Amino acid sequence: MQRYFANDKNLSISNLDKHHIINVMRMRVNDLIEVVYDEKVFKCKINNISKNDVSYEVVEKLNINTELSKKVTIAVSLVNEKKLDFIFQKCTELGIYDFIIYESERSKVKVNEKIEKKLNRWNLIVKEAAEQSFRNHLPNIYGIRDLKFLSEQNHDLKLVASTKKVEKSIKNMLQNSTNYDRIIIVVGPEGGLTENEEDYLINNGYVPVTFGDAILRCETAPLFIMSAIKYELGR
Amino acid sequence: MQRYFANDKNLSISNLDKHHIINVMRMRVNDLIEVVYDEKVFKCKINNISKNDVSYEVVEKLNINTELSKKVTIAVSLVNEKKLDFIFQKCTELGIYDFIIYESERSKVKVNEKIEKKLNRWNLIVKEAAEQSFRNHLPNIYGIRDLKFLSEQNHDLKLVASTKKVEKSIKNMLQNSTNYDRIIIVVGPEGGLTENEEDYLINNGYVPVTFGDAILRCETAPLFIMSAIKYELGR
Repeated sequence: MQRYFANDKNLSISNLDKHHIINVMRMRVNDLIEVVYDEKVFKCKINNISKNDVSYEVVEKLNINTELSKKVTIAVSLVNEKKLDFIFQKCTELGIYDFIIYESERSKVKVNEKIEKKLNRWNLIVKEAAEQSFRNHLPNIYGIRDLKFLSEQNHDLKLVASTKKVEKSIKNMLQNSTNYDRIIIVVGPEGGLTENEEDYLINNGYVPVTFGDAILRCETAPLFIMSAIKYELGR
Repeated sequence: MQRYFANDKNLSISNLDKHHIINVMRMRVNDLIEVVYDEKVFKCKINNISKNDVSYEVVEKLNINTELSKKVTIAVSLVNEKKLDFIFQKCTELGIYDFIIYESERSKVKVNEKIEKKLNRWNLIVKEAAEQSFRNHLPNIYGIRDLKFLSEQNHDLKLVASTKKVEKSIKNMLQNSTNYDRIIIVVGPEGGLTENEEDYLINNGYVPVTFGDAILRCETAPLFIMSAIKYELGR
């Protein structure tokens, strides 16, 4: 069944979603859709459909939940748009809770007047990926923030992907931490965080971790992290 | 240091790689490169460079190995070209050993006269990803094969991503199998393998496994698998 995230508790959906139902899916009266609001899923039946509008009524509340048992935040540096497209789509499919985009010294992309438009596009990518992979939770993107914002986060487990030789791996940390609900992992831009930036986060409660010996591109690291957490938390 | 895979034991590299050294990296005499042949890495010094050619000599054999401790094969169905581009690049970064492309009933893409050209492109994507992530092993792509070819594989651990409700997860299998060297995982196209196809593989020694509750797109599943294995085998 096609899933749509609603904008409010009356379960109204966006015009773009209406267009999708009417013109892309070419649905008809009595067809069923799933509408999600506040992480609750409602099976709805279409009772009216015209060229520009569609109305539906709740048939039943569904008890489905495929969310991970922990809330994962990944903070990604402002890298190029295509790489972020990819990170947002894939991490959403893999069950991320929310994203932070932050500026760092080695970020090649600078914030400019186009950023609002980009953020809107990224939010749309996340919404579509969340609908397609039947998520109950619609991940949020916090952007564009800075290292100070990261230092103020109070997740139970705070990790930073280190480019230095460090003792702990992400596997050590995940397997030896059971008593946490929210986890944040900071991933650097190409070339990594500077030593000062990494030290600043460490001084604010972040643990530096490695992913193993191999070198992962900055757009592959978030995917590896989400897959690893999904794997670790899964059955 | 820039890494290049050689074509033969004399450590000769392709014209494309020479072009990369001369015109993209704009290297000079005495610059160092890493040349890999038969999984051995040689530090080489450039001793002559012209508009069209470059020569170098071995300075020392390097003892670096970041390969995973198990050899992982992923068999992917013939899906669209962009998705395969993505699968080949990311799985190579994550340490895959080799790929098989196979045709299945629900493959939307059919084999035609352009396939040789596509295979050449995919091999180039794999080579570049392997060089950039400092692999010693250059993954091979076996294509285009069929289910019979898959049934004849004699890996120690043979898994097929199931779309049915099955007992075993990939985590069960990885954590309860220590005595293996080579593992193969078959991933279906969009919509999955047909029941007949899955049964055929099961009758030929494959174990059906699930990745958990969430639905992963056919291009995300191989990434999740490689990340999970890298995580499981890592420290």
